[in-house]
Amino acid sequence: MLTRSDFEKLDATDDLASFREEFLLPEGVVYLDGNSLGALPKASASRAEQVVRREWGQDLIKSWNKAGWVSLSERIGDKIAALIGAAPGEVVACDATGINLYKALGMALSLRPERKKILVEGSNFPTDLYVTQGLVQQLDRGHEIVYAEHEEILDAITEEVAVVSLIHVHYKTGRLLDMKAITEKAHAVGALVIWDLCHSAGAVPVDLNGCRADFAVGCGYKYLNGGPGAPGFIFVARRHQGQAIQPLTGWFGHEAPFEFHRDYRPAKTIRQMLTGTQPIVSLSLLEEGVDILGRADMNKIRRKSSLMGDLFVQLVEEQLDGFGFELASPRAAEKRGSQVSLRHEQGYAIMQALIAENIIGDFRAPDIVRFGFTPLYLRYVDIWDAVAGLRRVMEQKLWDLPDYQAKAAVT
Amino acid sequence: MLTRSDFEKLDATDDLASFREEFLLPEGVVYLDGNSLGALPKASASRAEQVVRREWGQDLIKSWNKAGWVSLSERIGDKIAALIGAAPGEVVACDATGINLYKALGMALSLRPERKKILVEGSNFPTDLYVTQGLVQQLDRGHEIVYAEHEEILDAITEEVAVVSLIHVHYKTGRLLDMKAITEKAHAVGALVIWDLCHSAGAVPVDLNGCRADFAVGCGYKYLNGGPGAPGFIFVARRHQGQAIQPLTGWFGHEAPFEFHRDYRPAKTIRQMLTGTQPIVSLSLLEEGVDILGRADMNKIRRKSSLMGDLFVQLVEEQLDGFGFELASPRAAEKRGSQVSLRHEQGYAIMQALIAENIIGDFRAPDIVRFGFTPLYLRYVDIWDAVAGLRRVMEQKLWDLPDYQAKAAVT
Repeated sequence: MLTRSDFEKLDATDDLASFREEFLLPEGVVYLDGNSLGALPKASASRAEQVVRREWGQDLIKSWNKAGWVSLSERIGDKIAALIGAAPGEVVACDATGINLYKALGMALSLRPERKKILVEGSNFPTDLYVTQGLVQQLDRGHEIVYAEHEEILDAITEEVAVVSLIHVHYKTGRLLDMKAITEKAHAVGALVIWDLCHSAGAVPVDLNGCRADFAVGCGYKYLNGGPGAPGFIFVARRHQGQAIQPLTGWFGHEAPFEFHRDYRPAKTIRQMLTGTQPIVSLSLLEEGVDILGRADMNKIRRKSSLMGDLFVQLVEEQLDGFGFELASPRAAEKRGSQVSLRHEQGYAIMQALIAENIIGDFRAPDIVRFGFTPLYLRYVDIWDAVAGLRRVMEQKLWDLPDYQAKAAVT
Repeated sequence: MLTRSDFEKLDATDDLASFREEFLLPEGVVYLDGNSLGALPKASASRAEQVVRREWGQDLIKSWNKAGWVSLSERIGDKIAALIGAAPGEVVACDATGINLYKALGMALSLRPERKKILVEGSNFPTDLYVTQGLVQQLDRGHEIVYAEHEEILDAITEEVAVVSLIHVHYKTGRLLDMKAITEKAHAVGALVIWDLCHSAGAVPVDLNGCRADFAVGCGYKYLNGGPGAPGFIFVARRHQGQAIQPLTGWFGHEAPFEFHRDYRPAKTIRQMLTGTQPIVSLSLLEEGVDILGRADMNKIRRKSSLMGDLFVQLVEEQLDGFGFELASPRAAEKRGSQVSLRHEQGYAIMQALIAENIIGDFRAPDIVRFGFTPLYLRYVDIWDAVAGLRRVMEQKLWDLPDYQAKAAVT
């Protein structure tokens, strides 16, 4: 049986431990929801003040050049590229994930005009599905969405498929797909692949170019610690740039945006994926989060989060036997991203009670409680304390309050 | 001839003068570029700190409910609605203008499937044109973009036109279109109208519902003082809500976003115009800018900015005769938004020299220098000082430096 001192020992020799100092964390809280909203880097608090008071307030319009706002999306994009196995000039930071997916899907479909099937996982995060459904309806050209789950995916990739659009680490279960095998199969039949890296970027090593990925999108506010609703990012492999037009053709994607030509001429570079002016304050904060990851070793992050996940599962088995939990994530760390999900029919109420104990995870309907592991600011003892708290909630039935049984609009 | 003391007298009796105290402005600068990037409200600097340090840093994921992030777009939308003659529930604040225009145009075209013409002004801000061109190419259903300028617009609105998409106050010249007459003509032939309010919202009184407007989009970072790249907004008249689907179908536009259904079901309300998660820090700052306008009287703002424009033009005529300037804006205040533009073949270099004198306007290719009037934080003497500076630049040929003749990527 594990004890708390086992976790203290791991913290004592943790070579990522010093990164915790770079974050401003609330006192007494165990935060296992960095997979939904990453914590606040100290540098972001200072950066916000600098961008607002100095760049906006004092330098005003000059900051477009002086502070580099005009190329901020590309600068941050290059930094994100380094985290996901992409090259400089293949990523820009901009817009929400759903909007970026729309661009990628629109561009990918126009590269495969003769094919009509789009392969997705029906259990994917809804926005990915909604964007796909919306584009199909809008185009009205007989595209068919094929829904396949996890183990059915490889077989469903046929020569009729134009685009395979998948989430790399599943938002609910944390299950990790084999990016290389799926991309290879898709290419073997002439299909393109879009990878949603929302739960991958900054969480697990990703090698887009090593896998010959075509497109990818991802989120700035989870493991990249970019702040609430931070802009996301989009990757387009260099070989596809300039080969098709993404449909949201705004001035920032024009070949010469400041010449104010009447007619759109797409930039031949990654800049074509931009549409309008980005929210500069939010975008600037994303850079601070990305910079921290740029100084960390992605393999060390992966090792620590895998171990944290394994220990969490082991503790759940040791401490919570008989309370009705079922593991919803893969048991093997190498098949899992940086989270562990449990199923419980009282999941919503249990998570509410746990949050009241200052242990923060989240709930995904209908019955999933999620715990995200963010090695840059979590200690091993946090894992122990989280499961101890969960045990308290179950032993004392703290979840069985009328308030918790009511539904709330939580994200 | 006007003298500086005429302007000082106007300031002494200006009943909007106290609003200047609500902004943090750089010392010694005359800022006439609030039509491109509005100044920093003091409240926004505090709000940034609150959102970053407390809402994000301390309350983390709880802030979606506790701080109201989840409905922030709608809350700010309702406040913007009050500034533009719309009702609560007809506006949401989100995304960049170009993306919002794409949504409005997509929705409008699907309400007029049998019609193929889209009427625009070829001199409109490029992003509006690019978005339209992109959508037409993407849909590939034989839509034709008809380009008409200003005085040609009414005649060009025929029964073949599906959508008229126009900017209310022209970004270059400041020319104000007759929203009511154009909307009435469009409706008389069965067309819909989209109004771009980028240079109107917070600058001139707008009465969308009084004009029976169908759709509108606008910018958060100009006269609304929302900060660099602040999210924009979109208006959909209540009668059109639930009648068609905007094409960027993300989870925030779903009828029940937190139920995580597989299939998209559009919200029947203005929420359908939302796609993904908004950049909360930037969005929050927009609220502060909008709140200031909510406390000001739009008619007083209009009176002051009209007078400022008139005085500016008069000073240009009195002080800058023979220097080669030509008025690019309408002479009559009622036909002009909140800016005055001048044409000069050395416009770019002149503006660079003027900025070096701490008088900030901007340049729009090929030959326009723009001066924006923002009555909430400008004094009448600023108008005098600006023209005095411009006279200095011309008399001393300060614009004739090699540096200024070189081109730069300015916005």
